Amino acid sequence: MDKIGIVDTMFARYDMGSIAEEELKSLPGFNTKFTLIRRTVPGFKDLAVESKLLIEIEKCKIIIALGMVGGADIDKTCAHEASQGLMLAQLMTNTHILEVFVHENEEKEPHNLIPVCIDRAKKHARNAYYLLYAPEKLRNQAGQGIRQGYADAGPLLLK
Amino acid sequence: MDKIGIVDTMFARYDMGSIAEEELKSLPGFNTKFTLIRRTVPGFKDLAVESKLLIEIEKCKIIIALGMVGGADIDKTCAHEASQGLMLAQLMTNTHILEVFVHENEEKEPHNLIPVCIDRAKKHARNAYYLLYAPEKLRNQAGQGIRQGYADAGPLLLK
Amino acid sequence: MDKIGIVDTMFARYDMGSIAEEELKSLPGFNTKFTLIRRTVPGFKDLAVESKLLIEIEKCKIIIALGMVGGADIDKTCAHEASQGLMLAQLMTNTHILEVFVHENEEKEPHNLIPVCIDRAKKHARNAYYLLYAPEKLRNQAGQGIRQGYADAGPLLLK
Amino acid sequence: MDKIGIVDTMFARYDMGSIAEEELKSLPGFNTKFTLIRRTVPGFKDLAVESKLLIEIEKCKIIIALGMVGGADIDKTCAHEASQGLMLAQLMTNTHILEVFVHENEEKEPHNLIPVCIDRAKKHARNAYYLLYAPEKLRNQAGQGIRQGYADAGPLLLK
Amino acid sequence: MDKIGIVDTMFARYDMGSIAEEELKSLPGFNTKFTLIRRTVPGFKDLAVESKLLIEIEKCKIIIALGMVGGADIDKTCAHEASQGLMLAQLMTNTHILEVFVHENEEKEPHNLIPVCIDRAKKHARNAYYLLYAPEKLRNQAGQGIRQGYADAGPLLLK
Repeated sequence: MDKIGIVDTMFARYDMGSIAEEELKSLPGFNTKFTLIRRTVPGFKDLAVESKLLIEIEKCKIIIALGMVGGADIDKTCAHEASQGLMLAQLMTNTHILEVFVHENEEKEPHNLIPVCIDRAKKHARNAYYLLYAPEKLRNQAGQGIRQGYADAGPLLLK
Repeated sequence: MDKIGIVDTMFARYDMGSIAEEELKSLPGFNTKFTLIRRTVPGFKDLAVESKLLIEIEKCKIIIALGMVGGADIDKTCAHEASQGLMLAQLMTNTHILEVFVHENEEKEPHNLIPVCIDRAKKHARNAYYLLYAPEKLRNQAGQGIRQGYADAGPLLLK
Repeated sequence: MDKIGIVDTMFARYDMGSIAEEELKSLPGFNTKFTLIRRTVPGFKDLAVESKLLIEIEKCKIIIALGMVGGADIDKTCAHEASQGLMLAQLMTNTHILEVFVHENEEKEPHNLIPVCIDRAKKHARNAYYLLYAPEKLRNQAGQGIRQGYADAGPLLLK
Repeated sequence: MDKIGIVDTMFARYDMGSIAEEELKSLPGFNTKFTLIRRTVPGFKDLAVESKLLIEIEKCKIIIALGMVGGADIDKTCAHEASQGLMLAQLMTNTHILEVFVHENEEKEPHNLIPVCIDRAKKHARNAYYLLYAPEKLRNQAGQGIRQGYADAGPLLLK
Repeated sequence: MDKIGIVDTMFARYDMGSIAEEELKSLPGFNTKFTLIRRTVPGFKDLAVESKLLIEIEKCKIIIALGMVGGADIDKTCAHEASQGLMLAQLMTNTHILEVFVHENEEKEPHNLIPVCIDRAKKHARNAYYLLYAPEKLRNQAGQGIRQGYADAGPLLLK
């Protein structure tokens, strides 16, 4: 049975890992074709090595890595480092790691981040599933301005 | 028969992958010397590992990786991470991956991005072909201020 | 017996390494399940290779890397490089290295950095211990807005 | 016979590759001790993998990689990525790759870039030669404020 | 006999390599326990691969890499790339490379950089020696605000 890994952080202010978990459990094949492994690390800079461990030790076929980025400049630099780590971990393992980061400054009011967290985690959980089991679902939406966290931007329109 | 890989994203707002595909299909050797493989991933940070998989698993000889970059600061940071991933994937595989990114802020009006997308995807598809089959076409244009997406800048002129 | 590595710097203006050391010595299993190795390097850019040596030569199971970041722009760039090194060292060794950096500009008055140093070093020492011996302690706090150095931010609240 | 590789771009607005080529051809040992291989790629982000191919496939002993950087912010980010690639390619191959980049904003008037291109390409071609065949020429100028593209800055003088 | 490597640049405007050399020659064990190898490269982006060659080909146990950073924005970007290279070279070789960079904008008057160059090169030469032969000298100064180039900042004081 395939394993899909979910890694999230204590730092984040919303339990996006559980959203991803629920979404995947709702999809066909759960517990017959694939199962889930979940890990929590302190902050997003710990996601990359934990993801790599899930791939190399636990043999996960794909990873969903979830984190939240604070609003200060230093947080943005740290997010950049975390992302570079996830990029490198993917290339070292030939395995997709979907980065699901929500930035505190995407919304002015903290509570407005909640629907962003839910939508982004849910859609990327589904993207992970498609990458593994239904890549044509992604192929059919090439260049369509698809978004996670917010409504789709849609394709560019001729004037 | 050689394989040329095309990877694009659902995030992009124009189907540049199809432009690259059509251009390559119009060139001599299609289906006799080379064939195409196309994949679509969620966003441009997923391009690098997908490109590497196409090279290492599907044995593609070259990759065209297409994406669109949003206008916010965070989009630029993400584009930088995506580019670093593509750079690393090239060096890990000794294979060219031509990065074809269009930035939303290259034009004020979104619809004006369409000709940029088309021209850039088309010319880089052709560059990929030349790198494989006609490197002298590139060599002959060394230092000539060649551009993709817009008209060539041309060589520097003495005053 | 497991080994936990602690690496700190001469550059830092507070002996955070000793705080981490004391915290770990207070936890169950010290000298029965795990022991400590400590190293000091000149500055934070020397932490990554020293951490890697502790992992690969001394067989440490996890590392706590502590440093302080000055307030000038160049210090921030250097911190970024130090962090990228720690990220890479983790991925090359499949081992967590918890980065415990305190930034001089987190507080206006230097002496106010002292409690930040103590709290952050202590909590991350504990996080290292949990990662090794009690990952469920971290899992139970997923998405709870946990912080080191300051009070927890807590989870996002519905309006 | 040793091989020295020269890689340049179609993007650049001056044919610096030919300058480097001519300079090397004028030095003792050309066609007896060393020969040249030249490649042209679309843009500077393609230089790194082409350089690595010249080193690993063509067995070049050193590479001169030449490019021109546009004046927009995105150009600077791309140059940074290109440089990181060249750095990584060097470390993966244990081979020097001399980066010869001219930035459009080094001069206000485009035509004034021409002498910069010529001087920089010429001097770095010579530096490549010295690294291979006369390292003492470099050693003798340690800390002397040597420049390529412009006049030497010279050593710091006591007040 | 151990070898300590010293790599510096022609670009720098002060011969810091010689300062490091003299300092190491004055320390116990020179020519009995350790000897020196010195190399000069054009600029600081050439330091990383030269350091790696000294480690892997010449079997140096530690490297001191010295450079000077100009005051323009592009110089800072280049310094960042040079530093990333030195970081990577350390991790690829499990060997310390002490980066000794002096930034032109550390002082308003160029001649005031001279004592900075001397002090920084001298102290880091000594740090390299301690890392190899007397790590307890570093351990004893953990968190003491030690600086190179300027006077020590000292430890944080309670109010």
